[in-house]
Amino acid sequence: MDIKFLYDNHETLKEQKVTIIGRVRSNRQGKAVSFMVLNDGTVLNDLQVVYKPETVGFEQGSKARVSSIVEIEGILIPTPTRPQPFEINATSITLLDQAIEEYPLQKKEHSPEFLREISHLRARTKTFQAIFRIRSTAAFAIHKFFQENNYVYVTTPIITSNDAEGAGEQFVVTVNEDKDYANDFFGKKASLTVSGQLNGEAFAQAFKNIYTFGPTFRAENSHTTKHASEFWMIEPEVAFADINDNIQLMQDMLKSVVGYVLEKNMTELEFLQEQLEPGLIDKITGIVNAEFKVNTYEEVLKTLQDAIDKGHKFEENNIHFGLDLGTEHERFICEEVNKCPTFVINYPKDIKSFYMKQNDDGKTVAAVDLLVPGIGELCGGSEREANLDKILERCEFYGINPEELDWYIGLRKYGFYKSAGFGLGFERLIMYITGASNIRDVIPFPRTPKTLLY
Amino acid sequence: MDIKFLYDNHETLKEQKVTIIGRVRSNRQGKAVSFMVLNDGTVLNDLQVVYKPETVGFEQGSKARVSSIVEIEGILIPTPTRPQPFEINATSITLLDQAIEEYPLQKKEHSPEFLREISHLRARTKTFQAIFRIRSTAAFAIHKFFQENNYVYVTTPIITSNDAEGAGEQFVVTVNEDKDYANDFFGKKASLTVSGQLNGEAFAQAFKNIYTFGPTFRAENSHTTKHASEFWMIEPEVAFADINDNIQLMQDMLKSVVGYVLEKNMTELEFLQEQLEPGLIDKITGIVNAEFKVNTYEEVLKTLQDAIDKGHKFEENNIHFGLDLGTEHERFICEEVNKCPTFVINYPKDIKSFYMKQNDDGKTVAAVDLLVPGIGELCGGSEREANLDKILERCEFYGINPEELDWYIGLRKYGFYKSAGFGLGFERLIMYITGASNIRDVIPFPRTPKTLLY
Repeated sequence: MDIKFLYDNHETLKEQKVTIIGRVRSNRQGKAVSFMVLNDGTVLNDLQVVYKPETVGFEQGSKARVSSIVEIEGILIPTPTRPQPFEINATSITLLDQAIEEYPLQKKEHSPEFLREISHLRARTKTFQAIFRIRSTAAFAIHKFFQENNYVYVTTPIITSNDAEGAGEQFVVTVNEDKDYANDFFGKKASLTVSGQLNGEAFAQAFKNIYTFGPTFRAENSHTTKHASEFWMIEPEVAFADINDNIQLMQDMLKSVVGYVLEKNMTELEFLQEQLEPGLIDKITGIVNAEFKVNTYEEVLKTLQDAIDKGHKFEENNIHFGLDLGTEHERFICEEVNKCPTFVINYPKDIKSFYMKQNDDGKTVAAVDLLVPGIGELCGGSEREANLDKILERCEFYGINPEELDWYIGLRKYGFYKSAGFGLGFERLIMYITGASNIRDVIPFPRTPKTLLY
Repeated sequence: MDIKFLYDNHETLKEQKVTIIGRVRSNRQGKAVSFMVLNDGTVLNDLQVVYKPETVGFEQGSKARVSSIVEIEGILIPTPTRPQPFEINATSITLLDQAIEEYPLQKKEHSPEFLREISHLRARTKTFQAIFRIRSTAAFAIHKFFQENNYVYVTTPIITSNDAEGAGEQFVVTVNEDKDYANDFFGKKASLTVSGQLNGEAFAQAFKNIYTFGPTFRAENSHTTKHASEFWMIEPEVAFADINDNIQLMQDMLKSVVGYVLEKNMTELEFLQEQLEPGLIDKITGIVNAEFKVNTYEEVLKTLQDAIDKGHKFEENNIHFGLDLGTEHERFICEEVNKCPTFVINYPKDIKSFYMKQNDDGKTVAAVDLLVPGIGELCGGSEREANLDKILERCEFYGINPEELDWYIGLRKYGFYKSAGFGLGFERLIMYITGASNIRDVIPFPRTPKTLLY
């Protein structure tokens, strides 16, 4: 039996004999009775075990240190007046493996910084149990949403020769480390992918609806709480779809994923709400129930300028067409003005990517970012440029050699009628759902500049 | 509407007006009527469209080349006497985007070798539509199985500093390419992971049940049909579990995943059975219904020796304790002797990994491989060594510096009572389920030595 089984069935197991293996969280001797708190990781809740000198194995049990593994046989006793609904009255304790005294996670509060140093152990704490279980649930919810809507999961390549996307600095993948790429493993320069989008688009032309969900990499020397060198992205792409379909998909996906986590992980969310972010559950429930708004980029500029004219101060107050909106602007729009998640569409073409569809106005592209209260941009996407000449013109503008991407650009020659998609940084979503404020705390073993542990 | 919607609802849509966007697979003019075959990727089946000179847009439609995108309005007409259950009687055709004449996938048979050269287009062929849709379904089935059994999905790191596992040659990840690792991005030598197992084990100590599912890499210069440089692995790990639990888990998982594909993708399986492997459906249905057998390694040796004594010839006939069983031996055992999937357990310790639990006989470890008819080894795993001294002794035997893995080995100090898990190469499973004989044909964009396309 595991502890989840006891929690799921404690009413029918009342007064029954149960057997449990678990890890000791605490163990204290009283005069008449002793208490051991166990966890086995199958559920966030702990199990309280009561034992006495007459319990078989009392000697062993009373010596069990924090983190030791014990097997308990006992009777499940309801405790309706206490916080936990039941406890175990032990008849027998077996110390299966004794932990050393120097176990780093003794029962006290540890700083997130200290816990990041021991990422092989921190998942045993309740906070990280909650975060990583929600991460797991959310990952499944993403697959579930797309699969139920007939999207094909495409594992796009991690090692790539695409270096012309301009999406960020890349790691080199090599066996020789001598820059002689012709004699390297792949016979050409190889890098870690920054996005599966271009490959995903090719597959959307085959399956109409596809999504990717895999690791992506940035060799950027960023030391912020929002950036990691290795993170996971979800990139759906839909052929024959335009920016409005894209907006609908983002909204449907986000509501579905957050709704599923609310359904499955309320215990974890309640714990994190207490530990990390007051109001967390209301915040994410708001996502599920909200009617999202749509603003054009130019509407946003006007709203920001109006606010400034009325005395609001941003760090960046020079509001002009071509401005790359900052998080302060994004949060102002969705938190103060619209008070709901907001799609911003039709950004200036010169601040967006070469593959985005140019609008008829000659100055904007059919890009869309989703802004959510508390975080700003959560995901972004676009309709793709279908016109071969227009995409070549954008390549020239950005200094991209179209021959290096001829397979991608050339898709437009073989029957191409609209395509739209977006990218969602998985860790950003998990930070939003869990209330964790540092990306290092939502990745099992985070990778950042100068940090490569475990 | 998409074509899947028509197939799912054609009975209620009978004689109704429908509108469809799709890609032209073929287009031929008859004297009185013309026929266009469309596909939109939402379902394996094509859609036949009948049109006539009086159809609006006839001129455009009759010029639509293979791979062009068209929009069809028309009436859905049942065709009970034909292979396809219905067709569309077009009232209007709009040519949304004309393909160039030189589209590489004209309607004829192409060799797998040619198609591998155009992996950005080959998913449009029926064979690859079937393979990659099954790949997607199977990936989801794996997540579904583990999530429903309360396993936590752990994304173990892709970039790693673990280079002491001995599991294979690794790619280096670098920004400087000068072997001066202290000044490289991570301040130490970084590689692409060959396995998430060790990190997964740490998380199993926190959650009891975990699984990984992510890309892994081998910088091996192998030019076989079974090896790729980048492939996906599933690695479950269960704390407090032994080799028998491991056997049960492998069997349950495999039956669940194959059963789910049989439930969801029978159309694709029937197509692949016709194209790639006669008897495919019986073969995989056999997995779902089989009672798997368990043999010890020494039993297998005896069976092989008996067969040789009776005149059977293997390529390797020197059967002795310490022999690493070849595919010929594995297939003989499960195909000729047991006639069912077979677990082989208790391999010689010196041909297995340092972390495997040593049995009391002093010469074997609690390792288990699953052999399946038609392929041999499908997955392998073990119970893990819980005893610190014994694992250190194995490190010494293999020349592994235990200090480089002290975080992993040290888990044994902090309360460690059994752990077991296994690794399943996802592509090997997909080859088995689809009948594809080359690993390059089950990976969307395969990576192999000297080949890095798209």
